[in-house]
Amino acid sequence: MVPTITAFRQSPDRGAGQARDMRVRWALEEVGQPYEVRLVSFSEMKRPAHLALHPFGQIPTYEEGDLVLFESGAIIFHIAQRHAGLLPRQTNQRARAIMWMFAALSAIEPPILERETALLLENSSPWRDERLPLIENHIRKRLAELSDSLGGCEWLEEGFSAGDLMMVGVLRRLNRSGLLSEYPNIAAYVARGEARPAFKRAFAAQLEVFTASQGRN
Amino acid sequence: MVPTITAFRQSPDRGAGQARDMRVRWALEEVGQPYEVRLVSFSEMKRPAHLALHPFGQIPTYEEGDLVLFESGAIIFHIAQRHAGLLPRQTNQRARAIMWMFAALSAIEPPILERETALLLENSSPWRDERLPLIENHIRKRLAELSDSLGGCEWLEEGFSAGDLMMVGVLRRLNRSGLLSEYPNIAAYVARGEARPAFKRAFAAQLEVFTASQGRN
Repeated sequence: MVPTITAFRQSPDRGAGQARDMRVRWALEEVGQPYEVRLVSFSEMKRPAHLALHPFGQIPTYEEGDLVLFESGAIIFHIAQRHAGLLPRQTNQRARAIMWMFAALSAIEPPILERETALLLENSSPWRDERLPLIENHIRKRLAELSDSLGGCEWLEEGFSAGDLMMVGVLRRLNRSGLLSEYPNIAAYVARGEARPAFKRAFAAQLEVFTASQGRN
Repeated sequence: MVPTITAFRQSPDRGAGQARDMRVRWALEEVGQPYEVRLVSFSEMKRPAHLALHPFGQIPTYEEGDLVLFESGAIIFHIAQRHAGLLPRQTNQRARAIMWMFAALSAIEPPILERETALLLENSSPWRDERLPLIENHIRKRLAELSDSLGGCEWLEEGFSAGDLMMVGVLRRLNRSGLLSEYPNIAAYVARGEARPAFKRAFAAQLEVFTASQGRN
């Protein structure tokens, strides 16, 4: 059964692949699972039909027969459970890979999102110049710890996993911040993730949505 | 094999049970798994021995034979996989329960933590009075959406799961904020979680650490 995911009809980042459908597309490409995409506008996302799938009115959602999921972490975990290729089979190694998914989402992504909020919504606020360095130092602290943990390894554990997919998906939100290059092994780790053929196919697919929307305008 | 978790030697909230070991204790109590606790001081948490277990220098960690985990989400998921009682057996229901764990950690907890940071670290900052209402409105938006999703149900899906455990664990950080009472079904949901015998045993266990530390002083 081919699952259907939702994505933005109009890419807020002009095809930079920072919306969370990118991570889900990447996971589906890694396991070789074809998928359908239903594009939703910002107003459609807040209507009852979409809220029935996603109570917070966001993308992505994932529909597969009777199953409806939201939250990219939960969707990617489900894909990784159903198909080989994203989680080790051995119990302890599997638990460690899942651990990195949670770490990406609850330890690394929140300060990165705070930075984006500060830049987007608080850019003209009187506290912006004082607060931004505090947030960036919080991000630096996490990147330094992650850098120590990664060391000279290729991936966070032995072999690429859904934990790396999620971590790279989160870290690449910083691609244009200048922060990643302060930690060369982290920058190289993100580049390794983005060089995977499955990542490139997913990136091209989401970029095509943006390109097509430009053609319509 | 009895697992060992770590917890604060000195409870920052004076035994209110808001540190993340509380959620792990609760999960272990729900499945009837005895556990050991190793208390760590704030300075011990930043030393190499602890950083080898937890790269971000926090609690809780979880050790079980060769397996070492950090991140309460990952630990609770591991406990739920290993023991019956926290996740439905049926695949789709199981995926939905796991979805709520991710939702609690990546959609609900971040603005709640932002509020705590604003109150603790930015309390004397010039922007505190202007920023706090913005954060609280973000929390209200999420609570309203969650309230709609929960409706008149007892738990987020059919039957208590690790998703509810995590969601209640996150929401009860707002216990003294006054925000929960604006959404009566959410307040009742949190109270239902806290009324579970396993919650009460876990709460008593972490409170005892605080009480004992007071006796030593």
